[in-house]
Amino acid sequence: MQQGIKTLVVVGVGLIGGSFALALKRAGLVERVIGVGRTLENLQRALQLGVVDEISQDIADAVTQADMVLLATPVGQMGALLAAMADTLPAHTIVTDAGSTKSDVVALFRQHLPRQLARCVPAHPIAGSDLSGAVAAQYGLYENRKVVLAPLAETGADASELVSRLWQACGAKVHVMSAAEHDAVFAAVSHLPHLLAFAYVDMIAGKDDAARCFDFAATGFRDFTRIAGSHPEMWRDISLANRAALLSELDDYRAALGRLQALLAAGDGTGLAEVFDTARAARVAWNQRFMRQG
Amino acid sequence: MQQGIKTLVVVGVGLIGGSFALALKRAGLVERVIGVGRTLENLQRALQLGVVDEISQDIADAVTQADMVLLATPVGQMGALLAAMADTLPAHTIVTDAGSTKSDVVALFRQHLPRQLARCVPAHPIAGSDLSGAVAAQYGLYENRKVVLAPLAETGADASELVSRLWQACGAKVHVMSAAEHDAVFAAVSHLPHLLAFAYVDMIAGKDDAARCFDFAATGFRDFTRIAGSHPEMWRDISLANRAALLSELDDYRAALGRLQALLAAGDGTGLAEVFDTARAARVAWNQRFMRQG
Repeated sequence: MQQGIKTLVVVGVGLIGGSFALALKRAGLVERVIGVGRTLENLQRALQLGVVDEISQDIADAVTQADMVLLATPVGQMGALLAAMADTLPAHTIVTDAGSTKSDVVALFRQHLPRQLARCVPAHPIAGSDLSGAVAAQYGLYENRKVVLAPLAETGADASELVSRLWQACGAKVHVMSAAEHDAVFAAVSHLPHLLAFAYVDMIAGKDDAARCFDFAATGFRDFTRIAGSHPEMWRDISLANRAALLSELDDYRAALGRLQALLAAGDGTGLAEVFDTARAARVAWNQRFMRQG
Repeated sequence: MQQGIKTLVVVGVGLIGGSFALALKRAGLVERVIGVGRTLENLQRALQLGVVDEISQDIADAVTQADMVLLATPVGQMGALLAAMADTLPAHTIVTDAGSTKSDVVALFRQHLPRQLARCVPAHPIAGSDLSGAVAAQYGLYENRKVVLAPLAETGADASELVSRLWQACGAKVHVMSAAEHDAVFAAVSHLPHLLAFAYVDMIAGKDDAARCFDFAATGFRDFTRIAGSHPEMWRDISLANRAALLSELDDYRAALGRLQALLAAGDGTGLAEVFDTARAARVAWNQRFMRQG
């Protein structure tokens, strides 16, 4: 246990938290995992599946035994959870998270754990899925995936390094950037596409001929809209948490779409083809890199 | 050959035309396939691969031997092709196409083949892919796929029935609707998402921090943008050919996106979650039906 920890408390035992626990157990880097959550049924399933060793619905009590607490819930729940654990959290315990936005998590740490900021390590594992719950937890989820750490100025190097080492043991590649940098990048490449896909499917579903439209939707529609099957509560929280960056991306996208529509209205085939060409070249180059990374 | 045809001329021997030829050969419903195209290298590859039996770069000559001509080129080339074959096309020859838009193809048939409209069968096989060229041709591409026939008022029942029978022999399910109905549906479920994806990738590629954005793009980005890897020339043609319906969809989508942005700007989590919920429920229901259909 020299490189690892004794007791990990995972708050929110779903795909993200559960897969972290499984990977660390397999690597022999955690001795005991306590699962904390709102839904007893999900916790019991996590216990049956061996994702966690113990379960608790009392976060204030559970954290008293923790060397590390991972918050793996939707971002919208984290404030209440941090408030609930603030009084009983041991001074040595590292607190990290797996939220999709970071500036808001930094603010929550500052608000609720002002005396323990040296032990706070905001993090974001990039491993999306439309699956959820303890049954979605899986070995190998983080193999070759990226994890962003966005430490505060106050975060201790030892805490950052331990969190980094654990993610690397899960097979992930760790990148460090500021919370603001993180949020701008993810507004662009993750949060905006989710909003675009949600808005699109909502629009089609509201059409008079929605049934016929859905009848003829095919593989292009399937892939373009996959992320519209994502968890509404989670994406409401992410959208609100990263509101400023996301509003800025929406402004840019609506302007870009307006320019494309003007080209189409003018029958400007050359202009349309230029946009399509640029997009295709960028997408093809991106996909080749992405596939090489595995 | 009672249910089939003797000589099929495929103009544009790529994924769509080549896979049609392969399926009909395997079904024993065509005796001889002549491939016509602009690129000699692609035609020679089609010949080597057994996708076609003969090749020609002279469409006026090739169609003199045809019982059926399939136009499987981008829609933007069809006018010139129909003009080139109009004078030599035998009276009995059926002319069909595989274009992604139908009102414009109907107009081209009326313009170039006004005395042979009884033999014209506008069609659209729903089998997208970002692959192209003769090497993309494959057996089984049309298994359980939909094909829309959009016959003119003048189209003879015998011509429609033969085209329908051949597509069914490829494994496809044939649906009949008007060209206008077809174009409205496909503007919504296919052409709009392509424009949205092209505009999105073009926008990301133009960012100052594009390299970092692409670095952190993951599976959600991958699926959402897959169709932005589609053929620029083909999609320029489709966009222009279905301009009116597509402009209408773009108006609707930009309005929907404006409403979503207003909810976000107002911090209206309930309103956001309602849109996301509706979209998710519709996407999940659609996907279950789509997977059952295979």
